[in-house]
Amino acid sequence: MNKNFFNELNILPVNQKFSQIAKDHIEKLTMPPWALGDLLNLGVQLSSIQEQFPPKINHKTVYIFAGDNGITDENISLFPKIVTEQMVRNFASGGAAINVLSRHAGAETVIVDVGVDANLEDLSQKGLILNRKIRKGTYNFFEKPSMSLDEALQSLQVGLDLVKESFHETDLYAIGEMGIGNTTTSSALLSALLDKDPDQLTGKGTGLNDQARLHKVEIIRESLKRRSASSKDDPLTLLQKIGSFEIGAMVGMVLGCALYRRPLLMDGLISSTAGLLASRINKSVTPYLFLAHKSVEPGHMAIIEELQLKPLLDLNMRLGEGSGTPLAMNLLEASSKIMAEMATFESAQVSGQKEEGDKK
Amino acid sequence: MNKNFFNELNILPVNQKFSQIAKDHIEKLTMPPWALGDLLNLGVQLSSIQEQFPPKINHKTVYIFAGDNGITDENISLFPKIVTEQMVRNFASGGAAINVLSRHAGAETVIVDVGVDANLEDLSQKGLILNRKIRKGTYNFFEKPSMSLDEALQSLQVGLDLVKESFHETDLYAIGEMGIGNTTTSSALLSALLDKDPDQLTGKGTGLNDQARLHKVEIIRESLKRRSASSKDDPLTLLQKIGSFEIGAMVGMVLGCALYRRPLLMDGLISSTAGLLASRINKSVTPYLFLAHKSVEPGHMAIIEELQLKPLLDLNMRLGEGSGTPLAMNLLEASSKIMAEMATFESAQVSGQKEEGDKK
Repeated sequence: MNKNFFNELNILPVNQKFSQIAKDHIEKLTMPPWALGDLLNLGVQLSSIQEQFPPKINHKTVYIFAGDNGITDENISLFPKIVTEQMVRNFASGGAAINVLSRHAGAETVIVDVGVDANLEDLSQKGLILNRKIRKGTYNFFEKPSMSLDEALQSLQVGLDLVKESFHETDLYAIGEMGIGNTTTSSALLSALLDKDPDQLTGKGTGLNDQARLHKVEIIRESLKRRSASSKDDPLTLLQKIGSFEIGAMVGMVLGCALYRRPLLMDGLISSTAGLLASRINKSVTPYLFLAHKSVEPGHMAIIEELQLKPLLDLNMRLGEGSGTPLAMNLLEASSKIMAEMATFESAQVSGQKEEGDKK
Repeated sequence: MNKNFFNELNILPVNQKFSQIAKDHIEKLTMPPWALGDLLNLGVQLSSIQEQFPPKINHKTVYIFAGDNGITDENISLFPKIVTEQMVRNFASGGAAINVLSRHAGAETVIVDVGVDANLEDLSQKGLILNRKIRKGTYNFFEKPSMSLDEALQSLQVGLDLVKESFHETDLYAIGEMGIGNTTTSSALLSALLDKDPDQLTGKGTGLNDQARLHKVEIIRESLKRRSASSKDDPLTLLQKIGSFEIGAMVGMVLGCALYRRPLLMDGLISSTAGLLASRINKSVTPYLFLAHKSVEPGHMAIIEELQLKPLLDLNMRLGEGSGTPLAMNLLEASSKIMAEMATFESAQVSGQKEEGDKK
C-alpha cells in the first residue's frame, strides 16, 4: 500500500447527461418553473451521480467511525476519554441520538471501531459493531505524530473497503464519528489545510467555556508548530502528523463513494473535515457529496465556503455521531420521489403559462 | 354568527409545566448540553402544546384549501384562472407535489373546496375532496370588496369546524392552499396589516417578469386605496375587503388548532399570511404555530419577522399547496422520538462532564 494508490483512484466526474435528463423532466412537472427550489437541485445531482433517472434511494446506511484521540492528554475536552467507549456501547444498544434518528429515517447504522482505546470484542463478536481497529487510539500529536504513514493508509483503506463491500446494495451513504477530543483534531487539520489561525476555526466542542477554548486554541497552535504541519503538506502527511483514525476512515469512505458512484452525506465539523481532506486528495469527489446541516462549530463554515456546498439544514446542532444525516436523508428521498411520482402538465391536463396575447 | 365569536374564543396559553418537564428530561440524555439544538426546542414546544411528555405525532394531516380569487381579472398571474380547478383535480388524483411529499411523510391530505369557480361535485361525491364551497370565487377587490362579512365569517368557520371534527385523531395539522392569484391577495393583506408599501411585499408569484411584477404592485396599491384597507381595519374587515375564501379558512384552522391544543405547520407566503391574520384576532395562537420553511417570496420574510418564528427549512421553495409542510413534519417527528427513545446518562452508564479537579 502506498500514497499513490489513493492519489490515482479512477474517480470519474458525475454524468451531465443524466443532469440534463432530470432538468428536462422537471420542466414538464405540474408546477411553476423550478418552484420546489433546492429539492429539484438535489434530484438533478442524484441523477448525475447514480447515472439513472429517476434516481432511487432505497437502502441507506449511516457509518459511525469511532476512535480515540491521544490529544485528550492535553485536557482539551469537557468529557473524559472513556466516553468514547461508553458511547460506542450506547450506539450498540441503540440508545444514542444517531440510533433514534436513523431508525426514524429507516436507515441502517454500522458502527466501526477503528481505534477505540478499549476492548470491544464482546460487541464485535455479537455482530453489534465492526472491528477494524488500527490501534488503541492515536498518539498525542502535541508530543509526536498521531500515527505512522502506514497507519494513515490503513485508515483510508478501511473506509474504501466498506464501500466496495456494500455499494451493490446501498444507495446512499452517510458518515458520522465518535471520538472524545476530535473537534481538536479537526480544527488542527483545518488550520493546516486552510492556512488559518486555529483561533478562527476552534469552537467550544462539547461545551467549553471561553478560557478552556483558548487553552484548546493554544494547544493546536503549538502542535502545528511542533509537527511543522501546514498547507504545504499533502493530505496524507497531515493525517499522519495531526489526524486520527476515524477521520482517516471517513476520508476513505468519501473516496470510495465517489469511486463507486454513490451519494454521500456529511454531518458536521469532523465528517466535513474528512470530506475536505478527501477533496484535496482528489478534487473530483466534491459533486458526490451532500452536506446534511450547518453546525454551530465555527470551523464548519470555513469548510462550507471552501467546498462551496449548501447545507441542507440549519438547526444549531453540534452533536456529531452523524446525527444530522438521517434528517437530511428525508430531503434526498423526497427529491427522488418528486422526480419519480409527480404528474406532468400533459398527464394531468393542467394548462401551462399564458402565451403573449392570451392574457386572461 | 358574528365577529365576537372568533374574537372571544377561549384559547389558552401553551402549558409551561410541560416545557419544564421536557427541558429537565433533555438534560439527562446522552449528549452534551442542548447539542441537538433546534430539534430540542421543537420537542419542548410540542410538549407544551400537547400537555404531555413525551409528545406524540402519529396521525398527521395536510389540509389544502382551494378557492378562486376575483383579482385574476386584473391580469396579475402568469397562469390562467382555470388552473385552480385543474390543480384541484390533480390533487384529487394524487399527482401534485403535495401528494408526493405527503405520501412520503406518511401524512393524510384533505382537499377542501371553499371557493373554486367550477363544478367539482364529481370529486366531492366520490369523497376525493370536501365540498365547503362558500361561493364560486371572491369578487375582484380592485372593483369591490372580495366578500360580505357573513362570507368572511363562514370561511373562518370552515377551518374551525374541520379541527373540531378531527382533533381527537389528529396530532399534527398543516395548511396549504391553491388559488391562482392568491399571492396578490396575500401581498395586499400584508401591506394593510403591516402598514408597508406593496412594493416591499410583492414578489414574482409563479414567475412574473419585472414589468409584470410592477403591474401587480400597482394593482395592489390602487386596490388598497379604493377599499380604504389599512392597518386600522380589524382582521375580519380586511379579509372581507381584500381577502379570499381559502385564506379565511386557513385563519379558522389556525384558531381551531390553538383552541383544541394541536400543533400547526404553516407553509409559505399565503398560509403564513393566514397565520398572521389569526394572530391579530387572538395573539395566543402564535406558540401553537410552526413555520415549515422560508419561501423566496419577499412578503414571507416580513411575516417571519413579525411573528418571530424560525423557519425549519430554507430550500428556495415557492410552490404553495402546503408543499413545504410534509418536509418539516419529519423534523417534528424526529424531535418527538428523541424525547421518547434516547438513553439517559444513567441508563446507558455514560460519564457526564468532568468535575473541577477531575480533569483527565
